[in-house]
Formats: sequence, C-alpha cells, structure tokens
Amino acid sequence: MYTLYSMQRSGNSYKVRLALARLGIPYRLVEVDILKGESRTPEFLAKNPNGQVPLLEVAPGRHIAESNAILWYVAIGSRLAPEDRIERAEALQWMFFEQHSLEPNIGAAYFWLCLIKGGRELQQHALEDWMENGYRALGVMEMHLARHDFFVDGHFTVADIALYAYAHVAEQCDFDLSGYPAVRSWLKRIESEPGYVDMDWQPQEFAAAAQ
Amino acid sequence: MYTLYSMQRSGNSYKVRLALARLGIPYRLVEVDILKGESRTPEFLAKNPNGQVPLLEVAPGRHIAESNAILWYVAIGSRLAPEDRIERAEALQWMFFEQHSLEPNIGAAYFWLCLIKGGRELQQHALEDWMENGYRALGVMEMHLARHDFFVDGHFTVADIALYAYAHVAEQCDFDLSGYPAVRSWLKRIESEPGYVDMDWQPQEFAAAAQ
Repeated sequence: MYTLYSMQRSGNSYKVRLALARLGIPYRLVEVDILKGESRTPEFLAKNPNGQVPLLEVAPGRHIAESNAILWYVAIGSRLAPEDRIERAEALQWMFFEQHSLEPNIGAAYFWLCLIKGGRELQQHALEDWMENGYRALGVMEMHLARHDFFVDGHFTVADIALYAYAHVAEQCDFDLSGYPAVRSWLKRIESEPGYVDMDWQPQEFAAAAQ
Repeated sequence: MYTLYSMQRSGNSYKVRLALARLGIPYRLVEVDILKGESRTPEFLAKNPNGQVPLLEVAPGRHIAESNAILWYVAIGSRLAPEDRIERAEALQWMFFEQHSLEPNIGAAYFWLCLIKGGRELQQHALEDWMENGYRALGVMEMHLARHDFFVDGHFTVADIALYAYAHVAEQCDFDLSGYPAVRSWLKRIESEPGYVDMDWQPQEFAAAAQ
C-alpha cells in the first residue's frame, strides 16, 4: 500500500488525494505540517532532499516527489492518463504550465493570504506580481476552456487535477473570477466528476466507505 | 518534419535543440525573438496562447508548448526517456523540480543579467531571492549528484537535459559553483555525451553534417 506524505491544506498534496480517491486506490496518509517545519527534519529530508510535500512512497524506501510526477505515477494505465502520444504531451504541457505559471502565483497568494497569519502584510510587495501573473495564467486557461470542456482529450485527466488544485482556491485569495466564465464552469464540471472529493476530505472516509 | 519555434539564447529552447541533435532528428528552425515581442503577435498567440518559446509543431496545426513536455514528446521510445514506471516518475519529478525551483531563479537571473541591458539595475530587488533560491536548488542537485552520475537510471536522459539548460549558464549570471563539485563534474559529463551541442549551435550545421 502506498504511503502519502501530505499536508491537508496544501493544494499540491490535494492533487494526489483527489487522484487516489478518483482511482479508488487505498493508501496510508501521513500528515506533515510544513508550517511547523515537519518537512525539514533530517528524517523527512532523507526521503525528499527538497523538503516538500506531497511525497509518495511507491516501494520500500523509494519515494516520488513533485505532485504532478506523482499524478502520472498513480494514474498511468487509467483513463486519467492519456495514452496517445500527442495527447500525453498536451497533458504534460498543461502540467508544466501549472507549475511554472499558475502555482507560483495563485499558490503563493493562497499560502500567504489564507494559511499564514499576518501573511498579507509580510508579502505586500510580492502580492501585486502574484495577482498580475495569476490573472495572466487564468486568462490562458479561459481561452482554452472557452472551446473545450476539459484540458486534454475531451475528458477529465491528470491535467485537470493539476490545474484544479490552485484554480479552485483562487477566490479565497482575492482573485475575482467573474471575468472567467469558462474557468468557473470547468471548476463546477470537475466537482461533479464521479469520485470527486474536496480539499477537507480525509481518506479515512474512503476506507470506511470501501468496507 | 518538425518545425521548432525557438530563441537562440533561451535555455528552455536550447533543451529541445540539444535533444533533437542527440536524437539526430532534423527539423525546421524558426527564430522567435521574444525581446522584440515576436512571441506576442496574433499569429504566434494563435499557435501558443501562453506566448512562449519553445513551441514544436508536431503535426499540421498541432503545437506542443513547454520545453519539458516537448522533451518527452521527441524522446519517447529512445534511451533518453526512461521506460520503467518508477524511473519515468523520477525523471518527471526532476523536470517539475527544474521548472518550479531552478528555472524561475537561475533562468530569471540569466535573463535579466545576461540578455537585458540594464537588467541588473531594474531587477535589483528580486535578485537576492533568485540567488538564494537558485543556490537552494543547486544544493538539492549537488546532494543527488554526489551519489549518482546522472539524475535517473544511471545514464543521460531528458531529466539531465532539462536541468543542464539553466545550470550550465549559472556562472554567467553571478552564481559561484565552487561549492558544488558534483554539479560541476556532471556539467562536464553532459558536455562529453555523444551528440552534445552547445547553446550557440544552429541546426544548419546538423543538416550540412547529415548530407
């Protein structure tokens, strides 16, 4: 059974919980509070030298880091992971876009505005850049979603999971999505997918439901 | 034949040129000068709404963006792309690390210090963060390379190409690699790989050599 090192309110960790729930894969969950330095202990750094969650133990002593790499690992062979060569590249494209253009902006705003007390004052100098670049990323998503129901291959894939994680908390951290109707429809579409779980959901519920 | 939209001095574009040279795949090269706004024209945005290079036309009217997604697309089926499920996830892990932790720091420093006249003065406020976070990323790479010759699977893969692109220009933009001996050895190892081409190389030379 997989062991997932995760923080409940981390969007990157949530991606993996959402994928595992959708796939019906049971796992052992270890909560790691990065705000308390729990990802910077010698024990954790031995598992992931980059000191971040999520981290998935896939075999004894073998760990995969980086949320989007974990998504591919767990989804391969399922309908969540496109098989076609071009569609696979398109999914990867959107997932690299997410880590480069969406997460560093909306993820940073979410972290400092929603998770850190007094974060808004501490990061006032950076917030303007995060908002500008975050809106730019949302604009790229809006253009695509105005013509497509999902990011790749006409159905729900790992690319949607990756992009959903931070897009769905944007309104909690000052982003106004009223000018992004296609993004808003897509968020609702994801939430009506079978197996959808929200960010507060914990896998004990899954284990109980599966019994 | 592929068409690659690329900027000669872009590290992200260089990744794709290096992979295609290694694989011996001919292609048509279109130089796009992002400094002159050439990636923001309506024609280019129709191909890539995110307005960035590299961009690879893989079939008429079908374009793949994001350097690391392109690397997977062109390398699949070759020895550059790990086949094993865990090794593939490890390669993806390092490539997402590159886009999230290395490129936004060393890539940003390289762009503003080496490509933009007066960039140092313009970005003085951000430079300290880029240096700190760039050294942090190099430290994670150093830890891995102290025990491994390459990032994944004991040989040269797409993960090495992704990380090499900006690591090899670090010294041009103020990073001191004297404390990173394993990174320095690895840079030399990459440069002695068969098919290696440097950032200045242009594919006309490849086409001529192939005749």
